[in-house]
Amino acid sequence: MILAHLLKPEIVEMIEAGAWNELRSFLADQPAPEIAELIASLDGRDRLVVFRLLPRKLAGDVFALLDADLQNLLVQGLAGDEVRELLAGLPPDDRTAFFGELPASVTQRLLDLLPDAQRRETLALLSYPENSVGRLMTTAYVTVRPEWTCEQALEHLRRRGRDSETMSVLYVVDDAGRLVDDVPLRRLILADLPTPVASLLDGRCDARLRSLQDREEAVAMFKKYDFYAMPVTDDDEVLLGIVTIDDVLDVAEQETTEDFHKLAKVRPLGGSLRRASVSLLFRQRIGWLVGLVGVNLLSGAALSHFEDTIRAAVVLVTFLPLLIGSGGNAGSQSATLVIRATAVGDLRPGDALRLLWREVLVSFGIGLMMAAAVFLLAWQRGGPGVGVVVASAMLAVVMFGSLVGLLLPLGLARLGFDPAAAGAPLLTSLADMGGILIYFSIARAWMGRG
Amino acid sequence: MILAHLLKPEIVEMIEAGAWNELRSFLADQPAPEIAELIASLDGRDRLVVFRLLPRKLAGDVFALLDADLQNLLVQGLAGDEVRELLAGLPPDDRTAFFGELPASVTQRLLDLLPDAQRRETLALLSYPENSVGRLMTTAYVTVRPEWTCEQALEHLRRRGRDSETMSVLYVVDDAGRLVDDVPLRRLILADLPTPVASLLDGRCDARLRSLQDREEAVAMFKKYDFYAMPVTDDDEVLLGIVTIDDVLDVAEQETTEDFHKLAKVRPLGGSLRRASVSLLFRQRIGWLVGLVGVNLLSGAALSHFEDTIRAAVVLVTFLPLLIGSGGNAGSQSATLVIRATAVGDLRPGDALRLLWREVLVSFGIGLMMAAAVFLLAWQRGGPGVGVVVASAMLAVVMFGSLVGLLLPLGLARLGFDPAAAGAPLLTSLADMGGILIYFSIARAWMGRG
Repeated sequence: MILAHLLKPEIVEMIEAGAWNELRSFLADQPAPEIAELIASLDGRDRLVVFRLLPRKLAGDVFALLDADLQNLLVQGLAGDEVRELLAGLPPDDRTAFFGELPASVTQRLLDLLPDAQRRETLALLSYPENSVGRLMTTAYVTVRPEWTCEQALEHLRRRGRDSETMSVLYVVDDAGRLVDDVPLRRLILADLPTPVASLLDGRCDARLRSLQDREEAVAMFKKYDFYAMPVTDDDEVLLGIVTIDDVLDVAEQETTEDFHKLAKVRPLGGSLRRASVSLLFRQRIGWLVGLVGVNLLSGAALSHFEDTIRAAVVLVTFLPLLIGSGGNAGSQSATLVIRATAVGDLRPGDALRLLWREVLVSFGIGLMMAAAVFLLAWQRGGPGVGVVVASAMLAVVMFGSLVGLLLPLGLARLGFDPAAAGAPLLTSLADMGGILIYFSIARAWMGRG
Repeated sequence: MILAHLLKPEIVEMIEAGAWNELRSFLADQPAPEIAELIASLDGRDRLVVFRLLPRKLAGDVFALLDADLQNLLVQGLAGDEVRELLAGLPPDDRTAFFGELPASVTQRLLDLLPDAQRRETLALLSYPENSVGRLMTTAYVTVRPEWTCEQALEHLRRRGRDSETMSVLYVVDDAGRLVDDVPLRRLILADLPTPVASLLDGRCDARLRSLQDREEAVAMFKKYDFYAMPVTDDDEVLLGIVTIDDVLDVAEQETTEDFHKLAKVRPLGGSLRRASVSLLFRQRIGWLVGLVGVNLLSGAALSHFEDTIRAAVVLVTFLPLLIGSGGNAGSQSATLVIRATAVGDLRPGDALRLLWREVLVSFGIGLMMAAAVFLLAWQRGGPGVGVVVASAMLAVVMFGSLVGLLLPLGLARLGFDPAAAGAPLLTSLADMGGILIYFSIARAWMGRG
């Protein structure tokens, strides 16, 4: 297997030389994901050339793998007939995903290119809320009836399975379209042909999704149940579609990326960083940064209460970055541990108290060790008084930062918000403010004593 | 379907009342993932009671879903015969995963409980390096020969498929066990029975893994190719096993968790946060925190160069948290964007220059806006001079933080390290030091001028 995207220079050369036949037969032999990578790396005009050379089926597969912005660019470059053929050939879930990302101004024009049945199906799928399970559904699956024999079911599969997205599970439905049970193809194959399908059912279709559930819940279900596909029903148990694990893997990756970005206080980019524009990046980053200026100004206001203390011992200021930095670092650690554990379902609401008690112990240990690490140095730089002040402030600041880092995400989760909103920048800013108050209060108390 | 883990109180009651038959028949009807959650939430003795009541097949499924530490606890509580039966019934990949996490002292004793063939197989799978594809393999799959007819292949499947982990793909091998091609079960079902298997092959088994590849590469391959299973071969193309997507989903989650922890400078916990001990948490967190003290002390040393400047205008100190905080926040943003984009394969080495240029523009814009936000406030608090110093330092510090946040992970990646090692705490500490130098240098220059 030759990896198409590694051959980019050769391919650009073939395009420039107009070696269409050579290029066409080379491309036809490549797997779709390789061609998708190749196309993503090419410039606008070459992209269209390569795409047009693909056999019809392969073109659909490649298209489904591209990012929304690239799909949009390609469609703009293709003629109406080409677009019609392309869209009609896409599996229902990939078609919904494509339409879901289109600018509203284009949606209607492209919908009109579809045959009636497909347009209705697409509109029905698009009617589900953006992050719902319904949006991930495909309607390409095979249903069988409980009263059929295995032979009839296999025969039905031979006739209808060609367009099905997965055949590892068949769905058994009654007259009214209600989901009765699912039966793995494996069980059908292993059974005797004259056996009725009903006798293969175990009476429990373990996992089913609802069309209006959040898609994150679908990710959690797939992780828990090691299934390749799950049926989606409405509240009356009528089978509406299925969701396959490959789509869920993509959703899981997007959701995780959002969590990463939230932690760093970047609003979701909703696409490739590589192709994000300067103005998009500016807009998604500036909001929180300016917001945090407010918090940091409070730190400054706190500091200005201690101007006398600072004037009396400027050496204290030289330990300020160390102290507030350490508090912020300890806080990011505990926040990240809690946020990630919540995201993967490792924590339950009832765990909060135990976590808190354990965090008190852990942060006390960490604080002590760090206090010991700076005590002698502070003594040497500013005398025994400064040594004691800095070391005890270190212990207090590390414990403060750790506990805020634990309680902030837990509190957000309790209030129904996403704990990942307690990102590192917010925490650091809060830890800064707390650290300043703690440090100079200790310093002033110590100096007032002396 | 009743969710077993939601019924914990009722189940504990049944255990206390000794209602074994009732509990046994309730458990037998539950899906394995629900029972696994239930067992994880129970106390030690109850855990063992519930596990012992499970039918043999279900017990194996539940065991495979438990965390390594819980598996280990259960096995310690079971009698030799029970352990033998349990381990013999596990699929090969789950058995390898279990043995791979065992303390060395126990491994040999448990291996001796296995029948010869299974012991050899387990040892062979354990001989692959810890994070390699080989460790994820299962040997439970079905191979067919190209010269067979589809009917023969289906017949073979009926006889051999019962223990196969997946049947959605069959693997076609030659006399020497070399992988010729893969053929989806769907294609076999849809074909006419007398057709030879060879005629169904498309001559390109698109994606195959090598047993010694890093398992992260397997994750990337599964994300790219939407397959449910992939064959694993050695360098001579001999088929060694297959990897299924459910195991890859687990690996992806673990690797992502490690990335989160790296970003917060926590050494990998390698298990549940909920069950991590105080001493483990202390050890995994203290290392970097003490290390960062060193960096932060440099910030202090930098500050002590400016004691005169500080004494001359203590008001400058009150803007210090704001400035270094803003630099650190902007830096975490750009670092997280780059680190995550690298992890999901969105960035290539060749993108570095474009990213850098774009970051210069974005951070200039952000810096200007933030400078404007603080200018008037600083003027009002300390006069026009302080206003100019703080605003221009803000621009410089935000740009410095953003560029360090971009270049540090890119540089680490270039040197072959994991870019996630450029975590928020490290960045914040570096941004602090840079911010202090920039801020007070500007202040001294301005004041020297006046």
